[in-house]
Amino acid sequence: MSIAETPEPPYTAVIFTSVRSDRDEGYDQTAARMFALAARQPGYLGVESAHDPLGITVSYWVDAAAAAAWKRVAEHLVAQRRGRDAWYADYRVRVCTVGRDYGRRGPPPGDPGSEAPGMGTVRP
Amino acid sequence: MSIAETPEPPYTAVIFTSVRSDRDEGYDQTAARMFALAARQPGYLGVESAHDPLGITVSYWVDAAAAAAWKRVAEHLVAQRRGRDAWYADYRVRVCTVGRDYGRRGPPPGDPGSEAPGMGTVRP
Repeated sequence: MSIAETPEPPYTAVIFTSVRSDRDEGYDQTAARMFALAARQPGYLGVESAHDPLGITVSYWVDAAAAAAWKRVAEHLVAQRRGRDAWYADYRVRVCTVGRDYGRRGPPPGDPGSEAPGMGTVRP
Repeated sequence: MSIAETPEPPYTAVIFTSVRSDRDEGYDQTAARMFALAARQPGYLGVESAHDPLGITVSYWVDAAAAAAWKRVAEHLVAQRRGRDAWYADYRVRVCTVGRDYGRRGPPPGDPGSEAPGMGTVRP
């Protein structure tokens, strides 16, 4: 997995943060299937995911309507119910509008013209 | 680390996604220091972080001005430069306004009244 190549803002980000339960029950297979299915939805821009210690998955969409449509896909609704009933001890979903982004795109490390990284921060 | 207890939207989220270089050079110590320092800034709401395979750190702020002020803290500026020069092969920072959030807060798994999880999705 690499950093999502999103277009110029504005676009929509959905931040899904989760703490897993101790129940597996096909989680990995369903997660892989959901990543593949999401990538075929209209308005999908990309996804980023990491899992230690929390699970954080950020999916990017052209707008809130595209993100909402993915929420309603039938096979995805089934996965959501399984998540609620079995896989997650806790979770939070945050729907955001990305107004600005920046970061290294191309210049090699140390290039004086490259952007400064954020460590979870914002450039004024 | 647990899921951040953020207030009702709107608030600001800064999504920092990164790919590490092979250079260590004090990264862990600086990262720990930045988490501690950020938590003392005005307008800080919380942070969530995960690191496999990507690094994803999401920090939450009362508004964009609070996030921008943290960006300008002197010790943080030094860390940002070290990140650009040594620690990150690639990164992206996305500054967002969270307009809506939902998720399990309290009800046990399987409770019929609990919210459905998202797997990176949005409730319409």
